[in-house]
Amino acid sequence: MEKVPRFMYFGCLVTSMILNLVFLMNLYGGGQWKVISWSRQAAEYAEAVEAIPCSGHGRAYLDGLVVDGEQPVCECNSCYGGSHCSDFLPDCVADADSGDPIFLEPFWMQHAANSALLVAGWHRMSYRFSDQSYISQVLEMHIRKLHAKVGNAVTDGRFIVFGAGSIQLLNAAVFALSQNSSVSPAKVIASAPYYAVYKAQTELFNSVNYKFAGDTSLWQNNTSDNTTKFIEFVTSPNNPDGKLNKAVLHIENAKTIYDHAYYWPHFTAIPAPADEDLMLFTISKSTGHAGSRFGWAIIKDEAVYQRMQSYVGYNTMGVSRDTQLRALKLLSVVLEGEGREIFEFAYNTMRQRWERLSNILSMSKRFSLQKIAPQFCSFFQKVRGPSPAYAWLKCEKEEDKDCYSVLIAANINGRAGSVFGAEDQYVRLSLIKSQDAFEILLDKITNLVAKEEGTKSM
Amino acid sequence: MEKVPRFMYFGCLVTSMILNLVFLMNLYGGGQWKVISWSRQAAEYAEAVEAIPCSGHGRAYLDGLVVDGEQPVCECNSCYGGSHCSDFLPDCVADADSGDPIFLEPFWMQHAANSALLVAGWHRMSYRFSDQSYISQVLEMHIRKLHAKVGNAVTDGRFIVFGAGSIQLLNAAVFALSQNSSVSPAKVIASAPYYAVYKAQTELFNSVNYKFAGDTSLWQNNTSDNTTKFIEFVTSPNNPDGKLNKAVLHIENAKTIYDHAYYWPHFTAIPAPADEDLMLFTISKSTGHAGSRFGWAIIKDEAVYQRMQSYVGYNTMGVSRDTQLRALKLLSVVLEGEGREIFEFAYNTMRQRWERLSNILSMSKRFSLQKIAPQFCSFFQKVRGPSPAYAWLKCEKEEDKDCYSVLIAANINGRAGSVFGAEDQYVRLSLIKSQDAFEILLDKITNLVAKEEGTKSM
Repeated sequence: MEKVPRFMYFGCLVTSMILNLVFLMNLYGGGQWKVISWSRQAAEYAEAVEAIPCSGHGRAYLDGLVVDGEQPVCECNSCYGGSHCSDFLPDCVADADSGDPIFLEPFWMQHAANSALLVAGWHRMSYRFSDQSYISQVLEMHIRKLHAKVGNAVTDGRFIVFGAGSIQLLNAAVFALSQNSSVSPAKVIASAPYYAVYKAQTELFNSVNYKFAGDTSLWQNNTSDNTTKFIEFVTSPNNPDGKLNKAVLHIENAKTIYDHAYYWPHFTAIPAPADEDLMLFTISKSTGHAGSRFGWAIIKDEAVYQRMQSYVGYNTMGVSRDTQLRALKLLSVVLEGEGREIFEFAYNTMRQRWERLSNILSMSKRFSLQKIAPQFCSFFQKVRGPSPAYAWLKCEKEEDKDCYSVLIAANINGRAGSVFGAEDQYVRLSLIKSQDAFEILLDKITNLVAKEEGTKSM
Repeated sequence: MEKVPRFMYFGCLVTSMILNLVFLMNLYGGGQWKVISWSRQAAEYAEAVEAIPCSGHGRAYLDGLVVDGEQPVCECNSCYGGSHCSDFLPDCVADADSGDPIFLEPFWMQHAANSALLVAGWHRMSYRFSDQSYISQVLEMHIRKLHAKVGNAVTDGRFIVFGAGSIQLLNAAVFALSQNSSVSPAKVIASAPYYAVYKAQTELFNSVNYKFAGDTSLWQNNTSDNTTKFIEFVTSPNNPDGKLNKAVLHIENAKTIYDHAYYWPHFTAIPAPADEDLMLFTISKSTGHAGSRFGWAIIKDEAVYQRMQSYVGYNTMGVSRDTQLRALKLLSVVLEGEGREIFEFAYNTMRQRWERLSNILSMSKRFSLQKIAPQFCSFFQKVRGPSPAYAWLKCEKEEDKDCYSVLIAANINGRAGSVFGAEDQYVRLSLIKSQDAFEILLDKITNLVAKEEGTKSM
């Protein structure tokens, strides 16, 4: 047998050791000496699905339909099609209807490692946490910390109830506040323009204890009726117009539910921490996870808290532990770096969108936007311009009474003013959807304004 | 420099190459060439938490409290304590109260790799799936496939609605079936012993359209009233006594809600696929994931389906996408191998528990158990003995009228008969909790029976 030269052994050894080093770094990256075993398959699959190419105009999901082959299909943004979402559909309708908070998706893509979550098959199978509640104590602590950092709500000495989105808590709150109102049902009211669900939900559930009773202004001067309880919904900032509303009714038998879904630094200046008796928040409009269905109520009165807990208990036995785990992971990312990163990202996105839309519409005589004054924000520690979630567009001309139809004729799908209990001269346009959706909306609006006779110089 | 002998180079090279091979197998195990990047941190953390030692009598969770140091604490099974759940607390109460389905936890531990799920930070942020519904089509297909494999329900041509556990769907179903009943509210009824939530939920939500009206037997001979609608809850197998109940009321204005939460091969023989107008199922009692809050309704009538969808929409905007993703993962594991593995594991566990409990109580004159006859099961294709979820224990002696108190005096916490609208001579004992809980329960019952005067020879 011929002898192998020593330098060849040496060369092979060095190569092999370098390879070992590469493997080591891959296997134990992050400085921790952990081998991934039972969680490997799930991690690999998630990364494989994430890598499915959808041209930047769509996304594949773990639970997506599998049509051909073994991979879930691309789900395309509106106005894009094709198996990889690469086809632009120029004649499609710009969808500015729903309040889908997809504008935050890029933030979570940028924080993929921190925000990923591995759920074991045996995670929290029980109905209850070890303290016998339906509520994760750790998540509750994260929520209190979040409000302290953002400065948008007082939570000290308050009770917290979780809900499947704030929508479940709307009715839970009405339920709790209407106790002992079976003889004379409590009147549920809101100031137009208001979020349509307040009315629709209250009417659908048709309780003995409460009824929807229309616009708050109808009851403002009704001070003679001391037996009927009033439950006033106050949305601040308001959906659709972004105003920092306050309660209108100031009588002893009136209770207020403050819907603060949009009271986050990306949608509004935060003048001071909210400090009302009953306040609702949600991750839908803060982290952008509308699909996760997670909201919370902050409550001063213990009896109201107990009733709301009871409602959520008998309605759904609390919020899914899977959802609570996800919310915890997301909020822990938000809290990293004092919460500045997500709110700066989100504010910059919303502010730019508003400025671009405002610039175009400033040239129009036919359409106008709501006015929101710049205001000092205690979170950003500066005066900041408006960045609302929605444009509350008004058709200014007499003949454009049906503003929704005017827009739909230009391939723009908004939400009609009458949905919010307001005039149909108004339309809500959602500004919080994907960047694709916003660009298409802006494009259609630009064309519409350009067609106006006597448009101010474009 | 002295020359290194050739054999030493050779030895090092072989060692290094073996190491390479080990790394390769670790890194690319499973035959796929994928490097884990952004999901690594989540996978490592999940495995680190799984590895926290809790002596086999408890578990640490990702969202557990962190008291000292950086790791979540062990949450101990009842009757165990200490920081690692290694202390047995001999004087503690055997907890057989709740229907926590922890008996299935070992199955999921054994299927760790298949049932793990990695959720990306951007997973399904939207309110809706791409078909604009709140329902995962893929999950719906899995559910239909599951029923076909198990043979416990007909789903062809039926509609499916998802709920946050079947508890949300109970009220959704009552709501849907009571349409147009505002003049004369529908009467919601159930045959004792019945699941307490039917009554409690209906009364708490206090709708104009329906009222709880007690035991079905009260209305059995009431055929004169054609204007009032009846909504009969039928639980099959029944909670608490495991009987395969059928509807009692057979009049035109009676509608039935079949609660089939327990209609799975581990709790009962499956004589034939259930084929009723409105049927409810849940993963709580099939995969054992009560904490995930996921159930579904199978519905014949399209109008009823629409109304139930409407209810779930305005109540919670559908079921959390996180929960739907988890349910999909779990059901995909159940469906592997035609669903035999989980149901055999679960049946064997429940059957053994029932046999051991029956053996002990067969020696008692003071306590008796419900009788369930062996029956042919179309899933297992054989006659099989009883394996119910609960023991419906009766105190046989006149002086033991308050059976709950008799048991609590022996450190056994069950659920009193009156909770189920039945006599307090009965107590429900949960047999579906952890093995620890069952062993402690059995131990306390053995002692109790041993103390009887004139016990048949032990």
